[in-house]
Amino acid sequence: MNQHATVTVDLAGRSYDIRIGRGLIDQAGAMLAALAPGAACAVVTDASVAGLHLARLGASLDGAGLRHREIVLPAGEATKSMARLDEVCGAVLAGRFERNDIVLALGGGVIGDLAGFAAAIVRRGIRFVQVPTTLLAQVDSSVGGKTAINSPHGKNLIGAFHQPVLVIADTALLDTLPAREFRAGYAETVKYGLIGDRPFFDWLEGGAWREVFSGGPARERAVEISCRAKAGIVSRDETEHGERALLNLGHTFGHALEAATGYDGRRLVHGEGVAIGTALAFRFSRRLGLCHGQDVTRVERHFAACGLPTTLAEVPGGTGSAERLMEAIHQDKKVSRGALTFILTRGIGDAFIAKDVDAASVLDFLREELAAPAVT
Amino acid sequence: MNQHATVTVDLAGRSYDIRIGRGLIDQAGAMLAALAPGAACAVVTDASVAGLHLARLGASLDGAGLRHREIVLPAGEATKSMARLDEVCGAVLAGRFERNDIVLALGGGVIGDLAGFAAAIVRRGIRFVQVPTTLLAQVDSSVGGKTAINSPHGKNLIGAFHQPVLVIADTALLDTLPAREFRAGYAETVKYGLIGDRPFFDWLEGGAWREVFSGGPARERAVEISCRAKAGIVSRDETEHGERALLNLGHTFGHALEAATGYDGRRLVHGEGVAIGTALAFRFSRRLGLCHGQDVTRVERHFAACGLPTTLAEVPGGTGSAERLMEAIHQDKKVSRGALTFILTRGIGDAFIAKDVDAASVLDFLREELAAPAVT
Repeated sequence: MNQHATVTVDLAGRSYDIRIGRGLIDQAGAMLAALAPGAACAVVTDASVAGLHLARLGASLDGAGLRHREIVLPAGEATKSMARLDEVCGAVLAGRFERNDIVLALGGGVIGDLAGFAAAIVRRGIRFVQVPTTLLAQVDSSVGGKTAINSPHGKNLIGAFHQPVLVIADTALLDTLPAREFRAGYAETVKYGLIGDRPFFDWLEGGAWREVFSGGPARERAVEISCRAKAGIVSRDETEHGERALLNLGHTFGHALEAATGYDGRRLVHGEGVAIGTALAFRFSRRLGLCHGQDVTRVERHFAACGLPTTLAEVPGGTGSAERLMEAIHQDKKVSRGALTFILTRGIGDAFIAKDVDAASVLDFLREELAAPAVT
Repeated sequence: MNQHATVTVDLAGRSYDIRIGRGLIDQAGAMLAALAPGAACAVVTDASVAGLHLARLGASLDGAGLRHREIVLPAGEATKSMARLDEVCGAVLAGRFERNDIVLALGGGVIGDLAGFAAAIVRRGIRFVQVPTTLLAQVDSSVGGKTAINSPHGKNLIGAFHQPVLVIADTALLDTLPAREFRAGYAETVKYGLIGDRPFFDWLEGGAWREVFSGGPARERAVEISCRAKAGIVSRDETEHGERALLNLGHTFGHALEAATGYDGRRLVHGEGVAIGTALAFRFSRRLGLCHGQDVTRVERHFAACGLPTTLAEVPGGTGSAERLMEAIHQDKKVSRGALTFILTRGIGDAFIAKDVDAASVLDFLREELAAPAVT
């Protein structure tokens, strides 16, 4: 077996490993056979990923003698719908997969969230395995058990907590990822440094980021550090009653931007919304006197160096008014009983959960941001 | 507050009470306000129940100052569908109910299963309260956290474990229940005696059953004993990895009969399927030499005395061939990796989980049952 790193998500009876390394997809069959001897696999993927990686995964499952059946969906955020959920559940049931069999998600966040939710509810819970094929999925969405579909009322509003039994993060699969998708996932990678690991941010900013993008050993290391950070938080607060909310740094603003652009990935993808949202969270924290301007500037410059946006002016087609963004923030799931909860920061590596944030002050801030001259 | 009994379902951090007594619906508002001060209530019910009990529940919620919104669905098994689930989730989100608010199911098993599932998945879990209005829901489906919808592949195949935070079983609501519905729920009540409480069966058979039907104090007592039995099993095995399967006594055959009659409640309701299924489980156990004929006869006679069916010949329109019933049994969720698991019995009060039951022997038994002369 190839050299690889293992990060364990410690959840008592439901603990699981994240395996990280180049070429691991070829070991998927052997790993599954060891974990669940004789299990059958319902492989959920999208048409784009299927063309790139499905044959290799299938060969690995065949090699281990595991029965498998493929469920191939259209690529894109629109797939995270009730209709597609129904389709996946139906296909899993038609294939007679049972509770000890496996639903395997081969894809990015959309496929992982949808397949994981289907696995959570078919027969009230089938074993679930993630083989994430995007950087965003490898460092964030494949770890921690949050699964969901979107609703006309907002993103991820219908879902379940359903932990995988294994995550296989083959970092070589990222070689085929479009540059824009890679950058978007990188915004979630940097997030772990910004939340609570200043040396990780220093390391990335100091040049390691180039190797993360190009595919050198720093990529595995960055995925491992990110997964370790997320695993720690998830182990301590699986269902987000406290600390886990820190992972939403940049996400309340980011989700509002996604809503404002109609969840149209041609205009704004999730990671880009998170990048702008994170920059907004830093600037809003500075405005409240919580965070030094120096740290804000470092975050903005590093995102810009990687080709990530940091201002509302960079959203193609615009975001609409500050009032419209506030409306979207109010519908976001981080609102608790009408009080605004935000992740704010005292500086790089020092994010915290701020409850009872004054809505009027957020609105003023957004008005200023919209009035600011575009970055040139 | 009225005199009532309380049964606690002991599940560590998710323990909850079942309150049982006549007229308790008028206390619902006060109970909820005590449990979840300031919470808003999404009341899910069906058109039949709404006409009978919704105004009283609403008055009770108003009296406690709780904001509430009604979601009224068509009555009947067809409501347990993905489309209705989508509708309920959408209505809960449109009403801006948050994780600490409450989804309240006012109805029988269909409403409880659907509303509970919606509560499980909207925002990945909203608080859930059951106000069961049928005997079946009071003694069985409202307790234990199993929620589900049906799939074209079978009943309850898509769902979640989501425990309520409170169950309010107002036994006076059963006064308006159609006789056929009452009898069907009674089959699930008797089940607890048959599984593991012979004195309970003796007591019911000895005459208490008449008072259960007529509404005397034995009704509360029977609901309490049933809930206590179920609560004990659920506390020890919440997600059905062992003992909880005992509650499926009569259900593998019963589900097959429901499938064979197209889930058409005009032909066969769930409790009738369970009554026949239970009688079949006893006769099959006798055939295997596990159970005395005397106990089989007592079960058959008691069901018949209450107006419940016990033979395949009593299914209106017939069940189709033994092979067709076997096909339905194979699709049922109690099949594990192709081996047939049945709940069998060594006699009244002594049910057990039998794994690796020989399919050929079940098929032979069903052929004999179909060939048997109708009971006259």
